[in-house]
Amino acid sequence: MRPTDFLPIFGWLKTYSRSDLQGDAFASAITAILLVPQGIAYALLAGIPPQLGLYASILPPMLYALFGTSRTLSVGPVSIAAVMIASALASPEISALHQPEQSAVMLAAETGMILLLMALLRMGSLVNFISHPVLTGFTSGASILIVFSQLPPLLGLAKFDCTWSLGCYADTVRTANPAAAATGFCALSLLILFGRPLTGLLKKTAMKPAWITAVSKCGPLLAVALGAAAVNRFDLHTDYRVATVGPIPAGLPALRFDMGDYAHWRLLLPYAVLIALVAYVESVAIAKAIANLKGEKIRPNQELFGLGAANIASALSGGMAVAGGFSRTMVNFSAGARTQLAMLAASGLVALALMFFSPYFAAIPKSVLAAIILVAITPLIRLKNIVDTWRYDASDGLAEGVTLLGVLVLGIEEGITLGIVLTLISYLRITSHPHIAVVGRIQGTEHFRNVKRHEVKTWRHLLLLRVDENLTFANVNYVEEFITDQLRRQPDIRHIVLIFASVSYIDSTALEVIEGLNDTLKNRNITLHLSEAKGPVLDKLQKTDFLGHLKPGKVFFRTQDAVNELA
Amino acid sequence: MRPTDFLPIFGWLKTYSRSDLQGDAFASAITAILLVPQGIAYALLAGIPPQLGLYASILPPMLYALFGTSRTLSVGPVSIAAVMIASALASPEISALHQPEQSAVMLAAETGMILLLMALLRMGSLVNFISHPVLTGFTSGASILIVFSQLPPLLGLAKFDCTWSLGCYADTVRTANPAAAATGFCALSLLILFGRPLTGLLKKTAMKPAWITAVSKCGPLLAVALGAAAVNRFDLHTDYRVATVGPIPAGLPALRFDMGDYAHWRLLLPYAVLIALVAYVESVAIAKAIANLKGEKIRPNQELFGLGAANIASALSGGMAVAGGFSRTMVNFSAGARTQLAMLAASGLVALALMFFSPYFAAIPKSVLAAIILVAITPLIRLKNIVDTWRYDASDGLAEGVTLLGVLVLGIEEGITLGIVLTLISYLRITSHPHIAVVGRIQGTEHFRNVKRHEVKTWRHLLLLRVDENLTFANVNYVEEFITDQLRRQPDIRHIVLIFASVSYIDSTALEVIEGLNDTLKNRNITLHLSEAKGPVLDKLQKTDFLGHLKPGKVFFRTQDAVNELA
Repeated sequence: MRPTDFLPIFGWLKTYSRSDLQGDAFASAITAILLVPQGIAYALLAGIPPQLGLYASILPPMLYALFGTSRTLSVGPVSIAAVMIASALASPEISALHQPEQSAVMLAAETGMILLLMALLRMGSLVNFISHPVLTGFTSGASILIVFSQLPPLLGLAKFDCTWSLGCYADTVRTANPAAAATGFCALSLLILFGRPLTGLLKKTAMKPAWITAVSKCGPLLAVALGAAAVNRFDLHTDYRVATVGPIPAGLPALRFDMGDYAHWRLLLPYAVLIALVAYVESVAIAKAIANLKGEKIRPNQELFGLGAANIASALSGGMAVAGGFSRTMVNFSAGARTQLAMLAASGLVALALMFFSPYFAAIPKSVLAAIILVAITPLIRLKNIVDTWRYDASDGLAEGVTLLGVLVLGIEEGITLGIVLTLISYLRITSHPHIAVVGRIQGTEHFRNVKRHEVKTWRHLLLLRVDENLTFANVNYVEEFITDQLRRQPDIRHIVLIFASVSYIDSTALEVIEGLNDTLKNRNITLHLSEAKGPVLDKLQKTDFLGHLKPGKVFFRTQDAVNELA
Repeated sequence: MRPTDFLPIFGWLKTYSRSDLQGDAFASAITAILLVPQGIAYALLAGIPPQLGLYASILPPMLYALFGTSRTLSVGPVSIAAVMIASALASPEISALHQPEQSAVMLAAETGMILLLMALLRMGSLVNFISHPVLTGFTSGASILIVFSQLPPLLGLAKFDCTWSLGCYADTVRTANPAAAATGFCALSLLILFGRPLTGLLKKTAMKPAWITAVSKCGPLLAVALGAAAVNRFDLHTDYRVATVGPIPAGLPALRFDMGDYAHWRLLLPYAVLIALVAYVESVAIAKAIANLKGEKIRPNQELFGLGAANIASALSGGMAVAGGFSRTMVNFSAGARTQLAMLAASGLVALALMFFSPYFAAIPKSVLAAIILVAITPLIRLKNIVDTWRYDASDGLAEGVTLLGVLVLGIEEGITLGIVLTLISYLRITSHPHIAVVGRIQGTEHFRNVKRHEVKTWRHLLLLRVDENLTFANVNYVEEFITDQLRRQPDIRHIVLIFASVSYIDSTALEVIEGLNDTLKNRNITLHLSEAKGPVLDKLQKTDFLGHLKPGKVFFRTQDAVNELA
């Protein structure tokens, strides 16, 4: 392992150029402009004081910049992790502790430790077991939950405390605070205008694309500034009871960590595991999407390490759990970021904001923050995707729909767990029915193909079977039954050749079953042969008595050789 | 579905012959001789009154005979299920209810319902996820636990209540009851003599093999009869405090079922799930082994139904959970059983014994039953198997060893759960690293093989890759990385052909990743092609835009065609 494998930053610093610096400097300003309102908004979404989101925007991006392999991923507070934190803090056993802030910080620490442990165990590829459909279903479901959770702050309502009574919802909506709702809707309109309408307009001018991005991404900052100004100017907080962020401690966070007790860690563990899993899978998906565009490479195990370090750093500086954010990363990239220097600078700017501007944050109306979250989250609700996935593969579409419903009906953790279990079950179901083809020779070639799909020559005493998967405990029974079925249909068969061209691994269960099958076949005067077996498979079989028991059955190099001898 | 699929008994009754009857009648007597002492012994092993084992030997085999697909499987009380029941009843939350008998019957009912549910969901093939090494490790571990659990009754000791203090064990052994230990060791010697020594001797005579089996299997009945006679003759129970079975209610069980409450069912659920899983996997393994010898066929989903019905029947008649027993099935088969009529008759004989001989059971010494269990269980301890498995496949050997240790150190349920989790993880690890080969053409043929293993021709601008597995969320990232790596090593490549001969399924995650890869390659002026793609795969791809996006990349029928055009 080279030093740059562990600290990728030194890999790209060596070739750093002036044009890189220009792109990074510009992108850092735009990303910082996004980080401040998002940090505050996502902390409130998680149900914790706003500074926890800002603290999570300083050290974690710096640590990720050192250890991460993506050059443009923006690590910091993200909406999906925030709603998972909210769900953990709202669970009866954790809310009974009445320490939401302490719990949130410990959750970040535990998430970081789990990620580091996974990095140590080199589990970067194992965590593939969240499939895209399950992830999309989960994200859509969580986003819908977030949309509903933001309606009360947007409208200045009391929290919904209704179950299935429509009247109760109507009563709650009637408690809306007109002043809060007005600022919320103004912010919403501003943000929507700053989206496609403004960029569409600007594209017709001669403005550079990077500047268009820059201007359009100022929406949240502008909304926050205007909202705070309105609160101050019209005394909205005191005279009209418009909820605001409230005082935020000025200055940088102290580096300290309150250990808490074992029972507390234990309670947080299942939530931390799921947050770590989702944070990792989402971050790598985003990082890969961008890296592919530029032909760069993401190393999953190093990502685990980078994200783990970022979360530990967040906890040490009193922040919430972090991950790579989709919208922020896209902004960072399209604003021209070339390397993680952009994120280093952006987090420096957030630190400056915290030192010098925090008094101004107090007056930001919560309804404006709700509008920011709503605009950021809506694109993540991809209901049509379920239909598209279903059309291509019904079981994937089902998994996506069920995960979404699971999140909505059962809850965040239950939904993602259900999705993972569904993925595993469908995976086992598929792989336990391997593809096996009876093959024959295409006339005039040495090419053997499926008898069902091609015009091929077959022989009366000879059965050629191509097994298209590794043989394991999960599928060998199916293979055995397939062969038994074929023999029942073709009683004249005297030789069976298993074409192992695609078999690279036979586990010990499969070997036992094939040994048993060979004995059964021998009793019935049928000889089993192999062909096209690969080197590693043969090497392993040679360690056992199998090839001896196979005799007079042979191992042929090519299927053609088997046909020449047996047909 | 034909009626005989659901009631296999009517399939073989139609061709039933006189010679079948002879074999079945003889085998039924031998199996009944085994069923009575085993039923009592396994009930005591489970920690419940002896009649629960006898009741489980009457209706359950009858129900299995109707619905099961194996002609010789002997369903009834078995040692591994008994020790799992003992473990469930000994758990703090269930023993706190002080209703061991009621709990055991409910456990049988719940096990039966789970098996029926699995049958309904057609999960016969899904439950393959217990691999042979894990099953062998579990069986060995559970058998070692059983051996230790039988030392106190064999020696007439108080139960061991020691942890890590050797002195405590020594003290407990000193409480041994000499009279009990003497009867125990006499029984042990008798049983061992009735094993290999007696059969070896009889083989030298002109006795028929079936009669040799019959005589050698009378050991347990003889031991029980002699033990009871000794207890009666020498007043061993009253004068020497030799523990005996005690009174057993005479006559057949009443068909009734006490529903219990929801909380009780809930507590038993995890145990019932594991008992159902182990009962099913063990039974099918035994049934298949015998069916293969005779060229018969076991249908897993129907087995789930048969075993489920047998367990429900056991619960309704006040019996314990049942499964197919290895030793009893082998005895039944080698005594000449041809069909389930043998088991029907055997269970009738057990019913007669319960009606007319139950007063004689009371005097059976527990030490003799312990000896019977010890002799039956010892062959299931297969420690050397771990070494053999390890030699063939280290990860399988590890799983077997860890499962065994898990059972011994953590407990029965924890051990089997650990084993299943290990199997799944190693399975995901293997399948997430699919075999991919860079291939070239073997000169003078149209045969393409791995460049690493064969002398083949390759081309500078053309990369031929054979993917040897279905593409799913679990392995597609590996495939993508493999291709990216190859391109880094061979920068001259302009065309990549993915040979899909072994690919029969591409899930939606894999499709997305390959679409992304195709975009990346296009940006770098490299064209992606497919070859040898199978019909079903092409059919599915045609539902998407993929083949359109692939252009100018093509889909070649044979790899040779691709070489002709691109090389």
